[in-house]
Formats: sequence, structure tokens, C-alpha cells
Amino acid sequence: MMKQKLDIKNLLTQPVPWLAHNVSNAGILISSRIRLARNISGFLFPLRAKATERQTIFDQIQSTLGSIPELNKSSMIDLKSLPEIEKQILFERHLISHEQINSRIGSGLVVGERESFSIMVNEEDHLRIQILSPGLELNRNWSKINRLDDLISSTLNYAYDNTIGFLTSCPTNIGTGLRASVMLHLPGLVLTEQIKPVTRGLNKMGLAVRGLFGEGSEAFGDLFQISNQSTLGESEKQIIARISRVVDRLLEHEKNARYILLETKPDYLFDYVSRAYGVLSHARLLSSEEAMKKLSALRVGIDLKMFTSLTLETLNRLMVDIQPGHLQKLYVKKMNPERRDSYRATLVKEYLC
Amino acid sequence: MMKQKLDIKNLLTQPVPWLAHNVSNAGILISSRIRLARNISGFLFPLRAKATERQTIFDQIQSTLGSIPELNKSSMIDLKSLPEIEKQILFERHLISHEQINSRIGSGLVVGERESFSIMVNEEDHLRIQILSPGLELNRNWSKINRLDDLISSTLNYAYDNTIGFLTSCPTNIGTGLRASVMLHLPGLVLTEQIKPVTRGLNKMGLAVRGLFGEGSEAFGDLFQISNQSTLGESEKQIIARISRVVDRLLEHEKNARYILLETKPDYLFDYVSRAYGVLSHARLLSSEEAMKKLSALRVGIDLKMFTSLTLETLNRLMVDIQPGHLQKLYVKKMNPERRDSYRATLVKEYLC
Repeated sequence: MMKQKLDIKNLLTQPVPWLAHNVSNAGILISSRIRLARNISGFLFPLRAKATERQTIFDQIQSTLGSIPELNKSSMIDLKSLPEIEKQILFERHLISHEQINSRIGSGLVVGERESFSIMVNEEDHLRIQILSPGLELNRNWSKINRLDDLISSTLNYAYDNTIGFLTSCPTNIGTGLRASVMLHLPGLVLTEQIKPVTRGLNKMGLAVRGLFGEGSEAFGDLFQISNQSTLGESEKQIIARISRVVDRLLEHEKNARYILLETKPDYLFDYVSRAYGVLSHARLLSSEEAMKKLSALRVGIDLKMFTSLTLETLNRLMVDIQPGHLQKLYVKKMNPERRDSYRATLVKEYLC
Repeated sequence: MMKQKLDIKNLLTQPVPWLAHNVSNAGILISSRIRLARNISGFLFPLRAKATERQTIFDQIQSTLGSIPELNKSSMIDLKSLPEIEKQILFERHLISHEQINSRIGSGLVVGERESFSIMVNEEDHLRIQILSPGLELNRNWSKINRLDDLISSTLNYAYDNTIGFLTSCPTNIGTGLRASVMLHLPGLVLTEQIKPVTRGLNKMGLAVRGLFGEGSEAFGDLFQISNQSTLGESEKQIIARISRVVDRLLEHEKNARYILLETKPDYLFDYVSRAYGVLSHARLLSSEEAMKKLSALRVGIDLKMFTSLTLETLNRLMVDIQPGHLQKLYVKKMNPERRDSYRATLVKEYLC
């Protein structure tokens, strides 16, 4: 019945479910995401639909999904009525896209229990179903999202063409409507200046390389998101298998780069980590971008076992909590950017010391 | 008789005499220097003289100065016979110019007891007499150097013209042959972006603004050397009075800039100091340039009483000991630049912790 109200305050007390310290190669393989673009037959795509039609779509999705017993612990939110700061938090938790912060009538979000899945309503497509989890878990995510998709399609009439497949607002999503992506932490490739040729190689293979926040976001903090660019001509499983293979190779490549750095330039590597710690533990002002970059170095340091008390768990938590929205909500009063940089520095110091 | 041999190893254990923590405004007014350019009548200027003539000049200066009883605790060195590393140390202690590191036949140095004065022999002029002391001490330095100059001129026949004054190799030194300079630490003017207009203003007043190592050296670590550009048309006392007045105004200007920063952007100022401390106390590799820049911030922090145990005395010592020559000599084995950066980082950490 989806009667749950999404408790944003409560979200803040929880770590994001897609960052974990206890998965395989947690220092490099950050998270895996699968999303499906789906549309309901008989309605204009959200970007072309007028306000009333968007509202109708929203209502129909709400009532239909509400009738699925398996989703009765999920929440559906009308984003239009949400304060911007709360949308910023949803964005930082990767539950909505940057575009959906500027929501219009009918913009919505469905969130599964403990953020196990999310569905953006009336973003570029009527539904953008997403499952995000830590580590390399594309196959498991695919099973889960496939089941969820089946549940939804049993109640909603998807726009589907027998030859082409799922119809989507943007031609780049047509067919499977599937985007599979893996977030990797690749400081080794960055420091050994291999990241540019590697990116070019991936692009030639039809894979996109993006930053922490996906499309349109620049890579910083050495976090790179690898995803398929085409959704047509391959089955879902083929797409996933292809990306998984590439990720396996990137993992080896990154490990090798770190090994070479450690063998040939240990001072340089330890200096890189250690001075990042020095700045994070002493700065009085920290922008989120600088903090992310320095935390990236600490992630390497944890991998190198340079710290006795700093854990990957703490680091993961910090990576989310220093984002502007989380930071503002964790603090009581309204902050201007400078106050925020000061509070961020205080928070980081608390975590580290 | 100048029988003393200059003990470079012993120099290294001594702080340089021109950096002190117990002079007035020690955080801003670093040191004062006066030097006189003098030449001996009847010889070509050093840059034009052949090797044998340069050697004759050297010998004559050595025997003449050796006959002055007041100089019998001084040492005279033939720079040509000195290892490069030791010349680098003399340079870092401001006893010789950068040019004199590449010494030729006849290049020499006279050093007074406890580095109280120095005379470069056969640099650009036959004699470059210098007195350097901490704080703003131009008048006292002038009295001292004037007395020393009188002693020397009583035994050496200076090239002198009754109308023009002292004759020098470069026309910019002709007349008094006097260069008075004050080294100031001006991070407040740098951080408030006033240093460029201030420099332009000083240039218009006929004053040169240079870096830590004088002519040809860039300003870094927020250290600026202010000196007179012309040596003609003003008496020595007039030159000194003019520079002293300017320095007094710069001192007020710098204090004011720091006060404004502290009032309007305290977080920014504390961040600037604190993160410099974070890097210096954590880095594993430090170039001398980066170290100087960060030490500059610590000097501000000491002024702001931000540190409980770090003193200006320690900081002054560190500023000299991190220079390449001192660093190499303090260490036992020969170091390549990377090893030096690593050892510098270790040394800085030892001083700070």
C-alpha cells in the first residue's frame, strides 16, 4: 500500500547501502548499479507531457505500485512538495538524479525498504528503476531488478515494441532500457597517468566513463563510473557480462599500478596519503571537492594498511556525510558555504581523530 | 693575521646570526643588510681581469687585511679550492652570492668572527663588504660597516673619484657603492592581494623588491627584500633613512592587513596556518620551496599565538637547515634530490613534533 512516509532524518543516521567495507576488493570496487528505463503506454514522455498529464502518470504509478503486496514497505514521495535540502540529500544518496532536484509537477520517487531499490517517476522516462549495491554485484542486481520489473509490468502497461524492445524518451536507452554501471576507485591509474588512455580504450569499447554522480558529472576523488553506452543489439545478460569482464580487468590494472608505485616510488605514494591525512586532520575550511580528493588518498592508505585506527567503514561514512546536503542537515542552523566548509572541516577532524 | 680557517662544519651547528626571535617585530622584520662595493685602484674590475691579475688582487687583499689587528679573528678563504657543497652552505647563510658558487681563480671570502661581517673578494667588484643583522638595524649596521670600511681604506688604495665617489664595476653601484636592504615577511599583504600594488609603489620610489636571495631571486615564502636602486645623489645616511621610513610604513601596513584578515576572515587565516602545519608534520617528501612556503604560514601562526610549543627560534633554525646545502651536510651520505626531499620531511617533522 506504500503508506510509508520516507523519513529523511532517519536516512541521515543510516550509512548509504551502496558503500560497504566488507565486500571483496572494497578499496577499489565501490558499487554496482543497474537501472531500467520504462514508460507507460498511452502517455507522452515526461519531458513533453503537460503538468496535468504528468500528475495523472504520477497518480497512476502510485496507485498501481501501491497494489503490489511486495512493495508495501516502500515509500512514494511527491518531490515537488519536498524542501530542496531534502532533495539534495536524496541526490547525494544516489536516489534521484541532479535533474530531479529541480522537480516539476508529477516528479516522484519510490524508495524501497532500507533503500534497497528506487524508482524515479517522471524524470526523463515515466519510470527509472534502480538497484545499487556495494562491490561488484551486477548479476545479483540484475536478478533483483528483473523480478521487480516483472512485478511492475504485471500491473502497468509498458510501452514496448516487439522488434525494438522498450520504448524510451531518449534513443540511447531504447531496447533493453538497461544501464549497468560500476563505480571504481582508481587512484593507481590516475597517479601513474594511465587513466586517460584507459578511458579512451573503454570509450572505443562502447563504454562510458563518468564521475561519482553519473551523467554530466566530472570524475573527482579518483572515482570513475563505467557503464554501457548502448542498450540495443545485446541482451541484458550480455551487457552485464561485458561490463563485468571489463571491471575485472580494470581491477587487475589498478592493483598492478599500485604495486608498481609501491615498488618504484614508495615515498611518493606514502607522501600522497600522509599529507592528505595531514590536511584533513588540520584544515579549518574544507570544500567538499577537496575533501573528496583527500579522502580518496586515505582510501589508498587504508588499503596500504598505513592507519591503525582509521577504517574503510569510517571513510565510507565520511564520504557521504561531507556532501553539502547531508552536512547541512546534520548541523542545526542554516549555513552559508563558508560556514559549511568550516563545519565540514570540524566533522572530518572528529571522524579522523 | 687572519690565520683562522673557516670551519664550515662548525658553522652548521650555529644559527645564522641574521635571524633572531628576540628583536622587535621579529615575525615581520627579518633582517637588515648593508653592503659596500669597493675596488682597488690600478687593477681591472674582476669580470675583466685575467686569472693572474685576479690572483694578485686576492693576494694583496689577503696580506693587507691580514695586517689589520682588528681583523685577526677573521678568516679568508680561497673559494676556488672549496667543495661546491660548502659554497652552497655559504650561499644559504648569505655570506656569498649565487654567482660566487661558480668561483674562478681569485674568488675569495673574508668572514668575521661569528659571521659578524663578510667580504666577497673578486665578485663583481674587488671587495663587497657586508653586514647583516636581525630585525631593523640599518643605522647600527651602517656605523659598523663604516668603521670597517675606514680600517680597510687605511691599508688599501680604493678607486675613488672626487666628483663621482667610489668607482664600481656596474654603474648602478657608483657613488656611495652602498646597498641597504631589509628582509620583511609580508604574508598579510600577499593574502590580501596588496603585494603587487605595494611593489609597484616601491618601485616608483626607486626601491627594488626582491626575494630571499636578493638579486635575481624570486620572492617565495612571503619574504621580500626591499633595497635602494640608486647609489648616486644621496648620502649613505639619506639612503638608509629613506629605506627605514619605508620599512616602518610597510610594517604598519602588514600589521593592518593581518588585523583585517583576523577580523573579517579568521577561519581563512587559521586554515592557512593550520593546514600548513598539517602538511609539514605529515609529508614524507618536501621540496625546499614548498617547505619555505609552509614555514611562512607557521611564522604567521606563531605571531597569532596558535602554537603552544613551536617557537620562532625553532622556525628560524628550520628555515636555514632545510636548504639543500645545509641539509646535505647535516646528513651523512650523499643524497639525490628525492632522498633530500625525504630527509627534509623527516627533519621538519623532528623539529615540529
